[in-house]
Order: sequence, then structure tokens, then C-alpha cells
Amino acid sequence: MNIAEFEQAVESFQKSKDYREPIAFGIARVDRARSDPNRILQATFAHINYKEDYQSAAIYLNALRAEPYNIESAELIAPVSDRFIGEALRWFEPLIDGGEKRENVEVLLSLAKIAKERALADYRAVFLFADEAPKTLEAVYLKLYALSAGKAALRSLNLDGAFGILPNVAWIDGKPIDLEWLRQNEIELKLRGEFPNVDFVDKFPRYLQHIIPSDNTRILDGSKVRFGARIAPGTTIMPGASYVNFNAGTLGASMIEGRVSSGAIVGEGSDVGGGASILGVLSGTSGKPIAIGKNALLGANSVTGIPLGDGCVVDAGIAVLEGAKIAVEDKEAIEIAKLNPSFRVSGEKTQIVKGADLAGMRGVHYRVNSQTGQMQAFRSKREIKLNELLH
Amino acid sequence: MNIAEFEQAVESFQKSKDYREPIAFGIARVDRARSDPNRILQATFAHINYKEDYQSAAIYLNALRAEPYNIESAELIAPVSDRFIGEALRWFEPLIDGGEKRENVEVLLSLAKIAKERALADYRAVFLFADEAPKTLEAVYLKLYALSAGKAALRSLNLDGAFGILPNVAWIDGKPIDLEWLRQNEIELKLRGEFPNVDFVDKFPRYLQHIIPSDNTRILDGSKVRFGARIAPGTTIMPGASYVNFNAGTLGASMIEGRVSSGAIVGEGSDVGGGASILGVLSGTSGKPIAIGKNALLGANSVTGIPLGDGCVVDAGIAVLEGAKIAVEDKEAIEIAKLNPSFRVSGEKTQIVKGADLAGMRGVHYRVNSQTGQMQAFRSKREIKLNELLH
Amino acid sequence: MNIAEFEQAVESFQKSKDYREPIAFGIARVDRARSDPNRILQATFAHINYKEDYQSAAIYLNALRAEPYNIESAELIAPVSDRFIGEALRWFEPLIDGGEKRENVEVLLSLAKIAKERALADYRAVFLFADEAPKTLEAVYLKLYALSAGKAALRSLNLDGAFGILPNVAWIDGKPIDLEWLRQNEIELKLRGEFPNVDFVDKFPRYLQHIIPSDNTRILDGSKVRFGARIAPGTTIMPGASYVNFNAGTLGASMIEGRVSSGAIVGEGSDVGGGASILGVLSGTSGKPIAIGKNALLGANSVTGIPLGDGCVVDAGIAVLEGAKIAVEDKEAIEIAKLNPSFRVSGEKTQIVKGADLAGMRGVHYRVNSQTGQMQAFRSKREIKLNELLH
Repeated sequence: MNIAEFEQAVESFQKSKDYREPIAFGIARVDRARSDPNRILQATFAHINYKEDYQSAAIYLNALRAEPYNIESAELIAPVSDRFIGEALRWFEPLIDGGEKRENVEVLLSLAKIAKERALADYRAVFLFADEAPKTLEAVYLKLYALSAGKAALRSLNLDGAFGILPNVAWIDGKPIDLEWLRQNEIELKLRGEFPNVDFVDKFPRYLQHIIPSDNTRILDGSKVRFGARIAPGTTIMPGASYVNFNAGTLGASMIEGRVSSGAIVGEGSDVGGGASILGVLSGTSGKPIAIGKNALLGANSVTGIPLGDGCVVDAGIAVLEGAKIAVEDKEAIEIAKLNPSFRVSGEKTQIVKGADLAGMRGVHYRVNSQTGQMQAFRSKREIKLNELLH
Repeated sequence: MNIAEFEQAVESFQKSKDYREPIAFGIARVDRARSDPNRILQATFAHINYKEDYQSAAIYLNALRAEPYNIESAELIAPVSDRFIGEALRWFEPLIDGGEKRENVEVLLSLAKIAKERALADYRAVFLFADEAPKTLEAVYLKLYALSAGKAALRSLNLDGAFGILPNVAWIDGKPIDLEWLRQNEIELKLRGEFPNVDFVDKFPRYLQHIIPSDNTRILDGSKVRFGARIAPGTTIMPGASYVNFNAGTLGASMIEGRVSSGAIVGEGSDVGGGASILGVLSGTSGKPIAIGKNALLGANSVTGIPLGDGCVVDAGIAVLEGAKIAVEDKEAIEIAKLNPSFRVSGEKTQIVKGADLAGMRGVHYRVNSQTGQMQAFRSKREIKLNELLH
Repeated sequence: MNIAEFEQAVESFQKSKDYREPIAFGIARVDRARSDPNRILQATFAHINYKEDYQSAAIYLNALRAEPYNIESAELIAPVSDRFIGEALRWFEPLIDGGEKRENVEVLLSLAKIAKERALADYRAVFLFADEAPKTLEAVYLKLYALSAGKAALRSLNLDGAFGILPNVAWIDGKPIDLEWLRQNEIELKLRGEFPNVDFVDKFPRYLQHIIPSDNTRILDGSKVRFGARIAPGTTIMPGASYVNFNAGTLGASMIEGRVSSGAIVGEGSDVGGGASILGVLSGTSGKPIAIGKNALLGANSVTGIPLGDGCVVDAGIAVLEGAKIAVEDKEAIEIAKLNPSFRVSGEKTQIVKGADLAGMRGVHYRVNSQTGQMQAFRSKREIKLNELLH
């Protein structure tokens, strides 16, 4: 088979009833509970595909045909057999000879090597055909991979019920151990001095357990970023009070010294100062996840409960919440309106607006007057520089 | 011996002069300093008993009788010998045959196995007969276990002088190493590339080194909870700015994203927001440890220096300290007094009270007016829901 | 050779053209990138010398003479050979026999042992003759060691360009691994269940990877202190929101529960409360690094953007920034001026000063009036006690 024949064969299979275009797929290795090997605790994908490499998807599916499978459902989890590997590699042969390096082929070549050494009981081919609420741990992990790898946009995937699917486990040196097994063996392990050093207990692993950051990304403490977060190249995560939850993160180079709650997104060039909090959907907001624009600055220990547009500044130590009353002087209101046409200038010398009214507006500087205690909004100076770049 | 004879024998020993009812007991394995094997660095209890299983206590003490021991003192630390194990197991035999599973028997069965493989120099039977200031490391650990296991109430045990008894050590993969040994071997270890990765340096180990949390408890970073803390089932400890010190913790399911200082207690259903601080007895309070009631909410980056009753809310970013002056409007004062009979309504349109005056009161919402900078107390809306549940 | 002859020989070499007095020197073991063994990722010094033990410097340099070397440049990085070790030990012989224990001799004795087991390709003799911008990783590490060991004063060394020299790597159990190698082997490692548990990704290692703290120092979470920080004996670093960056730290016993940014220095007896932020040169200050004096107290979640003199207090939750307007009542101004002659008393009933005007002043208590929102400065009561100790 040459490459032209390969492509024709793939195309032909893609038109068959046995093929359905997946939104994501990949091959995973699973970790099992020691107290019950049928319980899957973690799925590690060697490589994940998200709306890409449909050729490989076709070859994988084709190679699974020896066993009946179901592509009607949103998820397909199939065991990986020697036969599957052999069949898929046979199809991929023209690519291997051609020297093109394709991750989905590399995965098979690695598996073929491993298959010579051990049984393949712990490997799964995983396909997602639709973005429904996940039903299996493998599907949850595939979605978290798509988010953390930056292939799927944050908040774009359906993760309803993921908490219920992921088991709560002890993480020891990067591996999940079931709490039940620890309990069953506690006395023996402790008396022998072999009780393991549990790093943490959670349903989610850490980002660095599954993702290799880019060369210009720094994560000074692995505990600070949950798997499922997106950390864009150039981001620095400091170890003080910072935290980035799953389905949250940064879109470009940025400095994170504060909390980026689940669902929160920080734009390129922004600085989340030491101890600053971006509130999440579960705490203190109206349930709408918060986005911070580009080149924004959240001062140390500030709190933001509203979305902020590009170039906003929140002074250190202040809390901008939806219900906060904020004074805007006339000339500042005019400047803010220039950037944000939806901002209504009342014409009063000082108008009082709510935090929610400023949600998402660009170039706003939030401050508390240190002599009157009044929270005030100004046109930020930061934004001016930014606009030159943007326009 | 059948079970009836067993129970009679135990009872008879319990009436003898060699028995004293312990408040806590257990068998521990100790870790020693490498530079001085006589220095004990840590005690790991296979199972601890706190005001329970006095039958096992009797059998343990009885089995120690071959060597003279002293039950007059508050603490008894006795070596564990093959003879002790054999003697105790002989008494326990009816239970073993009867199939009843008792942790204190499991401990002996494990020790009997270990005794076949190695000498038992590192094991200790530890009894506390009275809750005095601890004199030994083993006694301190037994008390910390009782607190962390949720068997003894927080703040209920005498830990005076514990800091002086616990050695400050390097913790490496869950094991204590004396700093002196590291110093003595620093040059060699570094040149060989074998200098160990020290996780932390402290007198206390971490909670997760000794305690297995319940299935619905999450501790996202082991460094955040010191041994001696109590983390009730259903608690989540986030990794941002959170910390729970020893002799502090939660009484029920709760969300901890802030600092729970030594002595501080958080009630069920409460949420300590990101970066929130509950001040400890050593910093900024009058020395009285702080309790937070049920269903309370400490907003992100708030600070609480007074106890808070059920259903209180502290807004994000504000500090409620004992000396703070807080304005209460007449109608709010009346509502607060309904819930808190000791609250004195002055009758003024706006009365000014001190933070200390509101200490422990239920259903109070603390806020700073964002237009005047005035700290104000209201009847919280949160509490209403809570009351429906409570009454 | 006896000791007198030894000293004469050393002195004579020190007068030769081959000697130059180093400001720092030592022997390091280097870690290499797996994907490119020529890339050095870390340098671990067995012992470092900073403006001390010039005798050993002379002997080391003398022993290097077999190969040409350059002492004109600010840095000399020379390979360590069997010949170098033999030559240096031969000179040191009188000291070894004399029983004097000198770390620089211990290093050679260890190396001599190691040389019998393996090649010495990974060892370097490193000399700094002038404090210029570092050109090599070894020079950066030697400077960071001098700072962290407390031998060179914080901020006293030229570290310009250090960030560009240090590679960004994955740190796994204390060892640096190049991200490139992880990428090249990701598929295989993941499929085999051997993907390493990456603790963090940074250009700098952690303080505890290279420094053994004193017996009365506690660092409750190793991730909280970057290598290059100085942690004076008696310091406690809590695990909540704390962080100490490189070229920053404490000068004496102190309590750190907040952020000590790069360049910031905390004096003896001071308490940086939970979540408190000392702003760094990169964020929110005018670029001047901030020093906190002795016996100062930064309350929980406070922010300090100005230097503070001895005995200052910043109340919980407030932000003292350079541009903040701060009210000082007449009698307080007079008290502040007594301690700080440069403070100008205006004579007004209440004078308004800027934060920057109070920079570095002693005995000032910063507070926000909880009824008016006005930021105010008082003469702190804390200072009085301090003065009794100081005078």
C-alpha cells in the first residue's frame, strides 16, 4: 500500500457505517484501585486528538472492527488488543515508511513494544462522538486533556457530573491509591514504617501530572494547578496564594499570584497580584463565570466578582463585587464611555453605579479613596498604552 | 478460654492494683535520629484508643507485667517485646477464634509477623492515664492522633510544652531526618548527587502522613494541614492560601480556602473563602481562640478576629477585629437581638458597637459601605434559611 | 611540609601572577540535560566560600595550574581532575595531619573517594573574582548560595541577567529534568506508567534543595522559599499564603505568613501576617526594594508598598501604598517626629501625607478608621517596648 492507496482506503472507511467523526479520541492507560481492580482511578492519555487527525481516528476505529462496537452513543471505550495494534499499524505502514512522524502512530509503535513485555489489560481506545455530559472516567479525562492541552476552549466542554464520576483518591508520587486500600492496610503499613507519603487527596490529579508546559511557562508549585486548567505559554504561576482550578486559566503570557477559580479566564498580559481572588461560579458571583481581559492588573489581595475588560486595574486590597456601589466622576464617566459605548453617562457631577453595571468594561481603574473610603472608578492609564497596540 | 472466661479475666485484672483506666493508649513505631539513635523523632501509631476499648487496655497492661511499670504517672511508655505480644495474644485468643475484628488485636497480629523478621526495638506501648502537660514525644503524638482522628474534641487536650518536646526535623518523603545528620553528611551527599529532597522542616508532620481521610474529604495539598488538625468528613481544603494548624479544624462538611489558625474551629456548612484569615491565639486576638459557627461565610480575603455565630457573613476583603467600631441601624439591631438575646439595642437610629461586643453572635452580616467606608452590621439573610433547618 | 612551611608556600603563591583573590569560590557538581548533555541544568556546591579561606583558594588555583586558566575574567570555571585533587591534597597534607577540619579539604577528600568509583566529568571548580553580571550558570548558583547561606548581604550581589542564564526545567524529587526530554519521551513514559511526578517547573530550585536550615528555623512547605532567599535562624515560614523569593528574606527570627517579594527584606522580630504582601520591585512600587524594620507587624491580608521602619504596625486588611493619602493628627505627628527627625510636622490639626512621605519611618501604626474609611497614621504602641530594648 502506498500513501495514495492509504488515503483512499481511509476515505472509503470514513464513508462507511462503521465510522463516525469523533470530536476527540486517544489511547489511555488506566490505573486501578488496589482494593478493587475493576475500579478505574485515573486515565493517562499518551496523546490526545481534538477535532484533528480524522485519518488516525478512522484507522483506529477500523482496527476495532473485529469486536462489535457502538458509535451511536457519545462515548466509545474499547479495549486495546494485540490484534488492534497489529491491524492499525498495518494500515499506517505507508506513513511509517514515508518517515512522517505522527503521534497516533508513535502511540501504536510504543504499544507494540509494550505488548511484547506484558498483557494489555490496562489500555483503552477512547472516542467522544458528541459533547454530552460524560458517563465514564475516561471521557472526563479526555475532556480535561483537551482543555489543559489548549485544544478545546475553556468552558467549551460539557463536564456536567464529572465530580460524581471521578473517585476521590490519595495521590502518592503522582499515582492514585484508593483510600479503601490504605484503610485495609493501615495497621500493617504503619507498623512496618511503610505507610506512604500521601501528597494530596482529591478527585482530580494535578496539571503537571499530565501536561508538559512550554519552555517559557513556570509553575513554581505543582499543587497550584489542577488538571483541566489551561496554562498558556509564558504564564508564571507563583507559589504564594495562587491557585488555578480546572476549566480555568490563562489565554496568554501572564503572571498569576492569586486565585483563578473554576470557570475564570485571564487574558494575555494580565497580572493577578499576590493573594488576589477572581471569584468562581460557586462563591459570591451570580453564577456567571468571570473573564479578565488583556493587560489587566489585579492588585495584591484584591477581589474581583465581576468580569473585567482589557486594561482594567483593581487597586490592592479592594473588593469589586456585583453589588458594590461605585462613584464615577463626570469626566471619568465620559472617558469610560468612549471605550465602552454601552456605559451610560448620567451627566451628574458624580454618578453612582453598581459593580454589575461595569461588568466587562474596558479601561476601568477601581480604587478606594483612602481619605473618604469611597469606592471610585476612573479611566485607567494602563489602557492607553494597550489601545495603541490594539488599534 | 471462652469469651465469657475472657471477659471475666479482663474484669478481674481491671480491679487489680496493676490496672489504671487510661484516657488514651496505643502501640507506636518510632523513628530515630540518624546522628543519635537515642533521639526519637516521630511516633506512628498503628491504632489509637481514646476513652474506649478498656478491655484491650487491660490485656496490654497485663501483658506488660513481666517488667515492672509505673501507672502512677500520667504517661507510661513501655517497650514492646515478643513476650508482651505472645502474652497479649494468648489472652485475646477467644476473640480471634470468635472472628470479631478488633484493631488492637490486629496490631498484635501484625507485630507477631514482624517479630519473626526483625527485632522490635522501635515499638512502644503508650498509655496516658491523665491529661497533663505531655512529657514525652510519644505522649504528644498520641494526643495529636486523638485530635486528628476526631476522637478528642479540639482544644480539649493539654498540649502545654509540646513545641519544646517535638524536635525540629527535615521531612523527606514522609520520614523525619535530623538536621544534624544532614549537616554532618552535606558535602558527601551533595558531591554524590544524593542530597535528599527535603519537603519541609518542622516539628510537626503533616496530617496526611498519619491520617486517612474519609471518602468525601478532599485535601488538595498535603502541606496545608498540620498533624493535630481535625478535618471532619466532607471538608474540602483548597490549595490556594489555605492552612489548618494543629488543634484547629472543622466540625462538619465545609469549604476551607483560607487560614484556620491554631485553636480556631469552623462549624458545619461554613465557607472560609479564598485567603480569608481566622486569627489565632498568638496574633491579633485577645488570646481567646475563635470559633466560627455553622453555615457561616467568610468572604475572600476577609479577616476575622472575633468568634462568629451560626449564619454570619463577613464580606470579601474586610477585617472584623475586636476593636473595630461597627455601625448598626436600629431595625437591624432589633433583628440581631431577636436571635441574640444578649445583644443590647440602644434605641438610637444608629448605634456604634465594638467588634468584641458582637463576638459569637448569630446571623450577623458584616459589611463596609463602599460609598462611606463605614463598617456596618446587618441581620444576615443567610441565617434565615439556617434557622428553618435548625428549629 | 609542616604547617609553617604550608603557610609560607600559600603566601608565596598568593603573591604570584597566577593568583587573584576571589570574592567567592567552591567546587560544584553539575546536572546535565538528558536531551543534550552539554546543557548544564543545575550546580550543587558542596561548600561555598565568600570572602573567606583565601588559603584554600590559593591551593585550589595552584592545583589548577597544570592546565592554562584565565583569572582576568570575573569568572573562572575549571574542570576538576584527579590531578587537581591529588595536587591540592598534597598541599593540604599538614592540615589533614594537624587534625584541623576545613570544609574545603573535606570536599577534596570526598572527591578523592568518588574519583575511585567514577569519572569526574560532572565537577567544576568555580571562582568569582569580581561581582559582575554573571555569565554562567555556575556563577549564578555560587551567588545564590552566598545569599542563601547568609554570607553575602541580600541585594548586595550583581544578578543581572540571571533569569536568562538559568534554564527553565522540570524539578522531580529535587533533580532537574529538561522539558525537551520529557516531550521526546512523553508517549513512551505515559504508556508505561512511568511519566515522572513533576513537583514544579522553574528556573530556580527551592531553598531546601541546597540549604540546611538552622535548628530553630521552620519552613513548613519547601515550595514557599526559592533558592537565593535568606532565611535567618529562628524564622518560621508558614504554609498558607507565604512566599519568599530569591534575593529576599529575613535578617533574624521572624514569622512569615505572607509574601516577601524579590528584593524585600524583613527585620528581626517582625511578623508578616497571614496573606500580607510586601510588594516587590516589579509590582506596584517605584522600583525601590522594600525593607521592613525590626519588630514590625503586618496584619493579616495587609499590603505594604513602602519601606517600614522598626516597630511599625499595618492593620489587618489595609494597603499602604506610595500614593495613598494618610491623615496624621497633630499630637501623633509630634510623636512620630520624635522618632523620625525627618518627619515634617505641619502644625495643622490633621495633616495629610502621602505613603511615600512615611517611607522607612519608625514606630508608625497604619490604620483605616472603620467608621469613616479614612486611612490614618499613629505613633505605634509597639515601638515603645522596642525602644526600651534598643536604648
